[in-house]
Amino acid sequence: MRDFLPADVRKREYVIGVIKSVYERYGFEPLETPAVENIETLDGKYGEEGNQLIFKILKRGEHEKTGEADLALRYDLTVPLARVVAQYQNELPKFFKRYQIQPVWRADRPARGRFREFYQCDVDVLGSKSMVVEAELISAASDALIALGFNDFTIRLNHRQVLTGILDQAGVPGDKHNDALISLDKMDKAGPEGVARELSDRGIVDESAVKLMRFFEGLAGAEHAVDLLDLKEAGDGRTAYNADVIGRLVEFIGSHEVGATGVDNLRQILAFSKASAVTQRIKLDPTLARGLAYYTGAIIEINVADLAGSLGGGGRYDNLVGMFLGKDVPACGFSLGLERIIVVMSEREMFPKELISSPADVMVTIWNEDSIADSIALATELRSSGLRVDVYPEADKMGKQFKYASSRGIPFVLILGDDERSAGKISIKNMKTGHQLELPFQEPEDAEPTDQDAAKWKRHRENLFRWLKNPTTVGEADDSIKPGA
Amino acid sequence: MRDFLPADVRKREYVIGVIKSVYERYGFEPLETPAVENIETLDGKYGEEGNQLIFKILKRGEHEKTGEADLALRYDLTVPLARVVAQYQNELPKFFKRYQIQPVWRADRPARGRFREFYQCDVDVLGSKSMVVEAELISAASDALIALGFNDFTIRLNHRQVLTGILDQAGVPGDKHNDALISLDKMDKAGPEGVARELSDRGIVDESAVKLMRFFEGLAGAEHAVDLLDLKEAGDGRTAYNADVIGRLVEFIGSHEVGATGVDNLRQILAFSKASAVTQRIKLDPTLARGLAYYTGAIIEINVADLAGSLGGGGRYDNLVGMFLGKDVPACGFSLGLERIIVVMSEREMFPKELISSPADVMVTIWNEDSIADSIALATELRSSGLRVDVYPEADKMGKQFKYASSRGIPFVLILGDDERSAGKISIKNMKTGHQLELPFQEPEDAEPTDQDAAKWKRHRENLFRWLKNPTTVGEADDSIKPGA
Repeated sequence: MRDFLPADVRKREYVIGVIKSVYERYGFEPLETPAVENIETLDGKYGEEGNQLIFKILKRGEHEKTGEADLALRYDLTVPLARVVAQYQNELPKFFKRYQIQPVWRADRPARGRFREFYQCDVDVLGSKSMVVEAELISAASDALIALGFNDFTIRLNHRQVLTGILDQAGVPGDKHNDALISLDKMDKAGPEGVARELSDRGIVDESAVKLMRFFEGLAGAEHAVDLLDLKEAGDGRTAYNADVIGRLVEFIGSHEVGATGVDNLRQILAFSKASAVTQRIKLDPTLARGLAYYTGAIIEINVADLAGSLGGGGRYDNLVGMFLGKDVPACGFSLGLERIIVVMSEREMFPKELISSPADVMVTIWNEDSIADSIALATELRSSGLRVDVYPEADKMGKQFKYASSRGIPFVLILGDDERSAGKISIKNMKTGHQLELPFQEPEDAEPTDQDAAKWKRHRENLFRWLKNPTTVGEADDSIKPGA
Repeated sequence: MRDFLPADVRKREYVIGVIKSVYERYGFEPLETPAVENIETLDGKYGEEGNQLIFKILKRGEHEKTGEADLALRYDLTVPLARVVAQYQNELPKFFKRYQIQPVWRADRPARGRFREFYQCDVDVLGSKSMVVEAELISAASDALIALGFNDFTIRLNHRQVLTGILDQAGVPGDKHNDALISLDKMDKAGPEGVARELSDRGIVDESAVKLMRFFEGLAGAEHAVDLLDLKEAGDGRTAYNADVIGRLVEFIGSHEVGATGVDNLRQILAFSKASAVTQRIKLDPTLARGLAYYTGAIIEINVADLAGSLGGGGRYDNLVGMFLGKDVPACGFSLGLERIIVVMSEREMFPKELISSPADVMVTIWNEDSIADSIALATELRSSGLRVDVYPEADKMGKQFKYASSRGIPFVLILGDDERSAGKISIKNMKTGHQLELPFQEPEDAEPTDQDAAKWKRHRENLFRWLKNPTTVGEADDSIKPGA
């Protein structure tokens, strides 16, 4: 598990902010659930392997002795959502569109880009079986990635019912479907022949394996043809490829009812996605299986070439809420992987430059012990005008205070020394150029103040504050820091 | 532990956003630490009672059998900060000013306003012993509360060394100081006599108890005098009262060196706070003790009349980092209690009205199965122009779609029906007034499009989008929803 120092937090908050604003544009609302759930809520939802990765919390009271656990750390955001939908069904709208951006915990062996505490950014729609939901989710996730600066991702789309249709029609018996899916999922790495071998190893009869291999070889050929197209044509090529895949699926699945419904769903998702211009990023991929047991319909994964895993994934899970509520509520969701997005954005240097900024717009120095209150009063005034202001906390050598401001990347430093005070001025130092300038600022110490003077000083101060808020008029090469007063 | 439905999340995000922006204005930077720490990190930092409230996580692997715990949930944000400062000392600036807004977990018995998972909003400055730090922290916390709309809070200020001085001078032996502090802390509820009785019960000799009681009775008298002043005079009264308390402390503590240093610190904090105009909210309170063992200097608590506990508290803890680093790093911090702030703000109805808004600016209806893609295309266009747009997910009866939009508080609904389509129009319905209007929107279905027409339709659409973004020109009582086209 990791600490995030300020520069890291700012990166994370930037990404989360962008994703949130896109999801809000799609009418999703925020939900937050506690980090800790009852163990029974999580038990049996993630399969054998997932179950072992759940962090369990010792029961209170006699816990030290019995070792009994009654609570567990949140493992994903989908199961807590299903619990919430069951628990608050009367308070939630007919269609519940929520986003949730919170950490989850898995007792995984840590590895590059894999952490025991990591954030998921989920969007889900509950209450509708319409493929409008799938299309909207795909479009929202795609928009979020585009808003972050990604433009080379592929949205892989498949359907659990289509997979059922394919496997049934290839003659794979129902109890071998899971084995077959695990093998098919490796198509990327192992190729059709490797997968055929594994299918055979898993006890799937050769005739079925051959049928499957012929089908997937055909797809691979069609895909290769698209890969040969140049970028300009890739969009059209993708559309043609998807139409080709639909055709092959119809042919292979034939009259298999469940499978045909799945193909119909895919056709609708493609049609609806065309309207949101996301269709050219979608690639039908009948080898996509996705691990989680609870998917019942469309399954989706978003990939970029330079990342082994996916940037995000999701799908339809019409039966999960039923495990809590006793009656099914249709549901479909998508989860973006914050950590992976940040890894790729960092490697590609996609973060905006102005993001990693200094902790303050200006630092107020402290001239000596006696003038501390004056420095704090100055900082208060600067802050009231909206500036981010650091105060050096001690009456230290001026050189040390400058050095500190420099090391923190604070662009300007203000000095109210004895000379400045008696002359009614303030010194401002540009920490990049080293140039320093005295500006009129307040009543000189021995002056007889008049009302007219007061207005003048007010104007001078306001000019200085305004300029500090937007000092871009002075470039790095400029030999003066003079504000445009 | 609680779920936060959308309206709750928006409240919480509003409060957190305000606090963050104030802390940023003071030059604080964000830090985040993991929810889970090693047990040894937390062990022995919170006293006997605190230790029992730590949630412990079962060790992986053989954990189910042994019941051994190696990890624990974060109990506060201060100890993780001390660990971070020790761990990253070479990466952090000389003065580390960080804010941290994250949940903590305590296995407390749940009660009104007390939860097992709750957020703390901490600011801390590490690296300086200067009282500028205390003054800046008090001012920042005060500004945060003011920015949230609080104007009636009191900042109670005391000093651990002053307490040591008072107890030593009253003749309380060192090993009875903790007992005495626990009793003194009850002054508010039990009054001087009750406290005297408890002191006696705790084995503190009568002579000491009487000395303490005389001192605190004197203070209570002075305080009562301030309470009699009206609000206009309260600020000046507070200043006079604080000066009076300082005088009484000087007299009572006399030449006690540690105590006198504490009084000096308090004097400085008051002087520095004057410069940030926060001084009139500060009330010196020599009965304030605060529970945590690690405080070494100033201690602070912020209260409002209508809340039993405090809105926040903090103080100086110069020795805590030393427990991790082996050498001491001076430190001082303040923690605002998010949950309590929200409780009081809700009860007082302090949240801005525009906060609990609808999930979308406009909802796009679906006319029939065949026009779904058109509705999605329309939503895409609206979203591109920056609007928050919900799409009703199914081709349903129009009345049901309207009803849904109403129930969600969505102010406008757009309809692209067959009539609209053939006439090149769009219907917009104001869900508050029920009024509906047709507007020119696109090429009528049977028209011959020209370039000039295209520009015209574009203008019509832009007008509609612009108006939807800022429809305030139409009031509730207005009998038309006509955008200013």
